[in-house]
Amino acid sequence: MPNFNAKVQVSLRTSVLDPAGEATKSAANKLGIKGLNKLRIGKAIDIEIEASDFEDAKTQLELLSDRLLANPVIEDWTLEISPVDSSNT
Amino acid sequence: MPNFNAKVQVSLRTSVLDPAGEATKSAANKLGIKGLNKLRIGKAIDIEIEASDFEDAKTQLELLSDRLLANPVIEDWTLEISPVDSSNT
Repeated sequence: MPNFNAKVQVSLRTSVLDPAGEATKSAANKLGIKGLNKLRIGKAIDIEIEASDFEDAKTQLELLSDRLLANPVIEDWTLEISPVDSSNT
Repeated sequence: MPNFNAKVQVSLRTSVLDPAGEATKSAANKLGIKGLNKLRIGKAIDIEIEASDFEDAKTQLELLSDRLLANPVIEDWTLEISPVDSSNT
């Protein structure tokens, strides 16, 4: 079965506060980094999955993102899938 | 001063264990998602910064990534910067 690489980006919805991001922004200011207008911390999940085809991989990864990787109440997610060129069966 | 959008991706070095990722992988298996070969959780930081030019933005963001966003002992980071087309001064 072919392998697929996927990247799921999970970010807080804009209406949700990000205290960790705010703390980092204020620490950056103390470090001398000026001009930061926005700093929000999200998750990036790196995945490799074996599936019968692209559609199958997509279905499984969408289920995974919705149910396990993101909290749909406060987070949004985006998914990128690319096939891996493999020489084995 | 021009604005720049930046995205910093922080990921655990491959030699470092990722217990949260392993737990998610095993939960995915119970959910019926088979064929996951890899699942590693990293951070994605969304930034907007005001700087005099691209080089200035890059210098500041590299300092920020090295000192505050990633732990260089166990994490690697990559940086993407793109200018924001703004009509105001």
